[in-house]
Amino acid sequence: MCAGRTGGIGMNFAIVRFIIGWVLEFEAGFLLLPALVGFLYREVRISIGFIAVAAVCLLFGFLLKRKKPERMDLYTREGFATVALSWLAISAFGALPFFITGEIPDYVDALFEAASGFTTTGASILNDVEALSHASLFWRSFTHWIGGMGVFVFIMAILPLIGGGTTINLMRAESTGPAVGKLVPRVKDTAKILYEIYIGLTVVGTIVLCACGLNLFEALTTIFGTVGTGGFGIYNDSVMSFSPLVQNMITLFMILSGVNYTAYFCLLSRRLKDAFSIEEVRWYLGIILAAAAVISWNIHKLYPTVEETVRHAFFQVGSIMTSTGFSSTDFDKWPELSKVILLLLMLIGACAGSTGGGIKVARVVILMKAIRKELAMMIHPRMVKKIKMDGRTLAHETLRAVNVFVAVYFVLFFISVLAVSLDNFGFTTNFTAVLATLNNIGPGLDLVGPTGNFSIFSHFSKCVLIFDMLAGRLELFPMLILLMPSCWKKY
Amino acid sequence: MCAGRTGGIGMNFAIVRFIIGWVLEFEAGFLLLPALVGFLYREVRISIGFIAVAAVCLLFGFLLKRKKPERMDLYTREGFATVALSWLAISAFGALPFFITGEIPDYVDALFEAASGFTTTGASILNDVEALSHASLFWRSFTHWIGGMGVFVFIMAILPLIGGGTTINLMRAESTGPAVGKLVPRVKDTAKILYEIYIGLTVVGTIVLCACGLNLFEALTTIFGTVGTGGFGIYNDSVMSFSPLVQNMITLFMILSGVNYTAYFCLLSRRLKDAFSIEEVRWYLGIILAAAAVISWNIHKLYPTVEETVRHAFFQVGSIMTSTGFSSTDFDKWPELSKVILLLLMLIGACAGSTGGGIKVARVVILMKAIRKELAMMIHPRMVKKIKMDGRTLAHETLRAVNVFVAVYFVLFFISVLAVSLDNFGFTTNFTAVLATLNNIGPGLDLVGPTGNFSIFSHFSKCVLIFDMLAGRLELFPMLILLMPSCWKKY
Repeated sequence: MCAGRTGGIGMNFAIVRFIIGWVLEFEAGFLLLPALVGFLYREVRISIGFIAVAAVCLLFGFLLKRKKPERMDLYTREGFATVALSWLAISAFGALPFFITGEIPDYVDALFEAASGFTTTGASILNDVEALSHASLFWRSFTHWIGGMGVFVFIMAILPLIGGGTTINLMRAESTGPAVGKLVPRVKDTAKILYEIYIGLTVVGTIVLCACGLNLFEALTTIFGTVGTGGFGIYNDSVMSFSPLVQNMITLFMILSGVNYTAYFCLLSRRLKDAFSIEEVRWYLGIILAAAAVISWNIHKLYPTVEETVRHAFFQVGSIMTSTGFSSTDFDKWPELSKVILLLLMLIGACAGSTGGGIKVARVVILMKAIRKELAMMIHPRMVKKIKMDGRTLAHETLRAVNVFVAVYFVLFFISVLAVSLDNFGFTTNFTAVLATLNNIGPGLDLVGPTGNFSIFSHFSKCVLIFDMLAGRLELFPMLILLMPSCWKKY
Repeated sequence: MCAGRTGGIGMNFAIVRFIIGWVLEFEAGFLLLPALVGFLYREVRISIGFIAVAAVCLLFGFLLKRKKPERMDLYTREGFATVALSWLAISAFGALPFFITGEIPDYVDALFEAASGFTTTGASILNDVEALSHASLFWRSFTHWIGGMGVFVFIMAILPLIGGGTTINLMRAESTGPAVGKLVPRVKDTAKILYEIYIGLTVVGTIVLCACGLNLFEALTTIFGTVGTGGFGIYNDSVMSFSPLVQNMITLFMILSGVNYTAYFCLLSRRLKDAFSIEEVRWYLGIILAAAAVISWNIHKLYPTVEETVRHAFFQVGSIMTSTGFSSTDFDKWPELSKVILLLLMLIGACAGSTGGGIKVARVVILMKAIRKELAMMIHPRMVKKIKMDGRTLAHETLRAVNVFVAVYFVLFFISVLAVSLDNFGFTTNFTAVLATLNNIGPGLDLVGPTGNFSIFSHFSKCVLIFDMLAGRLELFPMLILLMPSCWKKY
C-alpha cells in the first residue's frame, strides 16, 4: 500500500505503545484490590504476589510511557490495534498472580483464566475453584467487572487520556454492537454516564444479594460476575447451592445487565417513552420470555415443582442469553430441544451497548428484517421498501457492517472448531467450546458443560480459545487486524 | 401490497398451474423407464405399479394443462413458485411407486426417499436397500439423474415451453450459484448444451465403470448417482464393496461432476485458456487437494497401505465436497479433525453451475474476498479496493445476493436443527442431519453416519428435512417464498 493513498502516514506505533503504558499503570492499581482482600483474609503470601505483579505492571507502564509520541493521531487501525494489544497485555499480566503464587501452576492455564475473566467469558480450566485463595477468587471476579464495561471506557471516564476527538476510535473498538452511538456529544461524558450506571447496578445488586443472605464476599464476587456478564463463581457448583431467592435475584440482575445501556440513560434522563420503545430491548425481553416458556414446558418433568422448573428455565436462559454463564442446574442433562435453544441464545447474545456477548440482538434483528425485505422484493420486484429500526431508516452502511460481521463471525467460528478438533474430543464438545468462548458465555455442552471445564484441552487449543474470547469481546475486527501483515507496516 | 406498485398485476397462478401440468406429463414419461427395467428383471407387479403412477401423472398433467393461461408473463415470483411447487409435485408423485408397491409402506418415508432422490441428496430411510426391486432401485438412482441437472433445464432443452425470454426465470430458480449466466444468448440453447455435457459425462462414465468390471445395471445406477451428485447406492454398504479401481473411477467422476459446467463449455468451444482460468474451479480443485492431503495424514494409521489411505481420503473428500454422499469407508470412525474437515466441505459444497449442492465455492470465495477487503479498509481507510472475480470487478448486487443467501442459509439451518431436536437425538446427529440434507449430501455423522440412516426420525422431522432438501437444491428462495403469505395473493 503506498503511503500517499493512506494520507501520507503509516501506523502510529508510538501512540499504541504510549496508551498500552497507561493501561498497564491502571492494571497496577486494580491489582491492589485483591492484595487488600488477601490481607483481610490473612493470605499474606498471596497478597505479596499481587503487589509484586502490580509493581511489574507499573514498571512496564512507566517504560512504555517514558517517551511521549510525536503525533497524537489515532485512526481506526491505531484504535483497533491499541485496544487488541492492551487486552492481550492486561490478560498476560493479569495471569501472573495466579502463576507466581502457584495457584495455577501452568502459565497458559493462568492466561486462559485471566483472558476468560477480562473478556467476561467465565470459562475456567480449574477443577477445584474452592481451593483458590480469597484474593485470587476476588481477582477472578473483579476481572469480569473491569472487562464488562471496558478498560478504555473506564480510563476515558476519569482522565483526558489524549486530546482531540479521536478517542472515539478506542471506545468504538471496545464497545459492543453494530453502530456505536455516543449518548452525549462528548466521549468523556458518555464514558462517565456508562460507568455511573454500571456502578449503580453493581452497588444495588450487592446490597440486594446481601439482603438475601449472602455475605459481602459472596455478594461482591457474584455481582461482579453478574453485571459484567462474566460467570466465574466462587464455588465448584457455580450458584447451584445458593437459595432460590438469591438465584432469582441473580436472574434479574443478569437480565438487567444484558439490556442496552441506552435504555438506562433514557430512564435517567426521564425519557420513559424512549426507554421502553427501543426495539432491540423489546426483542431481547421477548426472546427471553419465549425461550424460558418453551424450556419450562420441555423440562417440566425433570423438576418436582413448577416454581423450580420456571426458576431454572429463566435462570439458564438469562445466564446464556446475556453470556454470563452461571448455572443453577446442570443443563447438559436437559432434553435436546432445550439445549439447542440455549445454543441459539448463545449465538444471538445480549443487546448491543450492554456488557454481554454474542452476535447481539440488534444485529440479528437487522438481519431478519433484511431477509424479510429480500423475500418481499422477490414477490414484488418493484416494491420500494426500506429497513427500519426504532422508526428510522437503517443506513446502508450499517447493514453492510452487519453482513460482514456475521460472515467473519462464522468463518472464525468454523476455523476455530477445526483447530480445536485436533484434540480429538467429540463434535458437541468442540462445537460448544468454541461457541461458549467466542460468545463469552463460559460453559458449553458435553465435556465443557456446566459440570465440566476447559482443562481437558491442549495448550494449542487453549490458545485458540483465548484468541476467540478476545475476538468475541472486542467484536472480531480489532483482534483480526493484528493478523494482517499490512497492519504492522510503518508506512 | 397495492397492485399499482407491482406493475398492475398480481401473481399469475394460471401459468404456474399450466407449467406444473407439463412437468407431470414429463414425469409420466420418466416413470416408464423403471417400468421397463422391471419387465426386464421379471418384476411384473412392480412394473405395473410404475405404469399406474405414470398414468396418474399423465391424468393430473392433462387436467392442469387443459385451460391455457390468458397471460404468459412469468416474473421472478412465478418462476420461483412454479419451480418450488413442481419439485414438490414430482417428489410427491415420484414417491407413489415406492408406496403403492409396498416397498416403502409409509408414505412420508416414500416422500423422503423421492425428495432425497430428486434433490440429489441421497439420504435414505431404508435399512435394507438390497431388498428393493430392480425397478425401484433404478428409479431411486434415476431421480438423481433427473434432479441433478434439473427438470426445467431438461424441458427447456427439448421444447419451446412458453414463448418469450421469461423462461430464464425458471432456469434461474433451478440452477445453482450466485449469478446464473447463460452460456449462449438463447436459454433453449444453453439448456441444450448443459444436457449434452451432462449426457456425455453419463455415457462416458457408464462405459468406464463397465470396463472396470461392473455390470450394466450397477454401472448405470452408480453413474446416475455420481454425475447427478446424488449418492443413492444399490448396496447396503454404499460402494464399499466395489473394487479399488471402481472406487477411484467414481472419485474421478464425482469430482468432474462438481466442476462448473462453464468450464466444459469452454473446453468444447476450444477455449482451453478460459476453461483453466476459472477462479472458482481452481479453488474447488485446490480445496479438494488440500483437504485430501490433511485427511490422509490424519487417518494414515487406520489403513494398512498408503494406497488405501489416499484412496479413501480422496473418495470421501470428493463425495462430500460435491455433495454426492457415496462412502467407500465409514468416515464416522475417523478422527475428529477429519470429520470436521468433511463438515466444512459439506458447507462449502461444489462449484456454482454444477449439479452439486452446498453454499458453493463461488459464494465462499466471494465472501472471503469481501472479508479481506473489509479488513484491509480498516487498516487503510482511504484505500480504493474492488472485489474481483475472474479478473472482472464484482457487481455490488452479486455481493449483496451472496450475503443475503448466507444469512438465510444459516437462519434456515438453525431453525431446522431446533425443529429436529424435538426428537431428542444427540446434537451431532441433529446438526449433521440438517447439514447433510440442506446441502444435499446424504450421510452425516453419528446416527445418520455412513452406516446409519434417517429412518430414526419422526414424521415431523422428516418433513422438516424434506423441506431442507428441496430448499437446498433450489437455493433457498423458491421454497421460502412459498412460506410468505403475500406470495399467495392474487393482486
